[in-house]
Amino acid sequence: MESINDFFASRRTVRSFKHDAVDSEEMERFLLLAANAPTTGNMQLCCAVVSDGDVKKELEPAHFNQPAATGAPVLVTFCADFNLFGRWCGLNGTRADFRNSQGLLMGVFDAVIFAQQFVSVAEANGYGTCYLGTTTYNLDRIAEVLELPEGVIPLLTVAVGKPAEQPENPGRLPLGAVVHMQKYSPFSDEDVRVLYAEKESRADSKMFVAENSKENLAQVFAEVRYPGAMLREFSAKLEGYLRAKFFKSRL
Amino acid sequence: MESINDFFASRRTVRSFKHDAVDSEEMERFLLLAANAPTTGNMQLCCAVVSDGDVKKELEPAHFNQPAATGAPVLVTFCADFNLFGRWCGLNGTRADFRNSQGLLMGVFDAVIFAQQFVSVAEANGYGTCYLGTTTYNLDRIAEVLELPEGVIPLLTVAVGKPAEQPENPGRLPLGAVVHMQKYSPFSDEDVRVLYAEKESRADSKMFVAENSKENLAQVFAEVRYPGAMLREFSAKLEGYLRAKFFKSRL
Repeated sequence: MESINDFFASRRTVRSFKHDAVDSEEMERFLLLAANAPTTGNMQLCCAVVSDGDVKKELEPAHFNQPAATGAPVLVTFCADFNLFGRWCGLNGTRADFRNSQGLLMGVFDAVIFAQQFVSVAEANGYGTCYLGTTTYNLDRIAEVLELPEGVIPLLTVAVGKPAEQPENPGRLPLGAVVHMQKYSPFSDEDVRVLYAEKESRADSKMFVAENSKENLAQVFAEVRYPGAMLREFSAKLEGYLRAKFFKSRL
Repeated sequence: MESINDFFASRRTVRSFKHDAVDSEEMERFLLLAANAPTTGNMQLCCAVVSDGDVKKELEPAHFNQPAATGAPVLVTFCADFNLFGRWCGLNGTRADFRNSQGLLMGVFDAVIFAQQFVSVAEANGYGTCYLGTTTYNLDRIAEVLELPEGVIPLLTVAVGKPAEQPENPGRLPLGAVVHMQKYSPFSDEDVRVLYAEKESRADSKMFVAENSKENLAQVFAEVRYPGAMLREFSAKLEGYLRAKFFKSRL
């Protein structure tokens, strides 16, 4: 096996998968390793739902039928889970009140840390993975399909399968864009331009700009991929769901 | 090197550190590997601030001077960062509007995934790490010390150093508590009791109950470690910070 550093340096997100079914025992083995990730106060305020076949088919439209969702044999939906812990407290004559923004963040952190250790384990064992950021856009529908009880909030989905592609390096910003020593080092306008120069000059970035008939890459992100009106619409849905199923739940 | 699966199976959170300084180039090397973790739309809406010495000393009270914070030679504060991306958009004649709950979650996911890959890399290279969940409790003070600009939100801090202890297995719930096949499998009250039985019977859990003069472990969590009144107070502060520095920012 390659060294762990080589693994982390060379991992790539995979969006195209072979059709081979994934052994559910293997998925469970990976999730057992993932469950050894850190968790807030060792409370494990999170869960993962592993879906294939008909259930996965029902989830696909909620992820806008994106190829990584329809093409992967398995979708694993990672959720904040306040239900199980809340019920345990109830059975013990007490009540955990996590129905506030700090409590919510604990479940979010636990779920994302669990998801990321799962991604690393699956990738290290020869699988390809792709996060679907669409989970919180349609969390109401996903909760319905997966029959999630009150207090269980779907956050991130990982598409998993044997890779059918070997993706090239997608390019990250220079390390100085995301790492600061001691305190945050403010950037001049010129710094910002320099930090993004390599990303803007990539052939795939230029294609992205041309395909979308925009003037530059920033416009593609801000106006095509993540337009404010779309995010605000899905934010209203997300907040409505959280109010009903979390902040004002009976947990 | 042990296999990657053995590494993930045996990793432990470390709260006691040797005093040895950590080489800042080594930290940067780990963060470079961590920055290869997945990120929303390859936007990297996150950053890490690596602090030691006097700056770390200033951060410690914001983490309630907990031993993992005061004892570690380095604290790495992981933040959602909408500032850099927003400025890049501004320089390109456009505006990314992430100032809504869906936008916020993108930055949260990016920051936590970045943090967790950093934790794995640091641990795989012989360092001990401990997440400090206190970051969002005092995010205003942490932002002040680290001179974070508008749109940069501190979320999780990782204490890092050479381990001065070999922690035992902290015990996780049986896998059935956090993994569901196809859809969420509802638990009966008896299921809940069985899932928590081993955790409740551990010697450290019993000591925890006795030390806090409680009747059971659930009460320790709900009433001593994470009391609702405390979480609500820190939630009000968090929400005030997010309103001023994120939702209503000029980004």
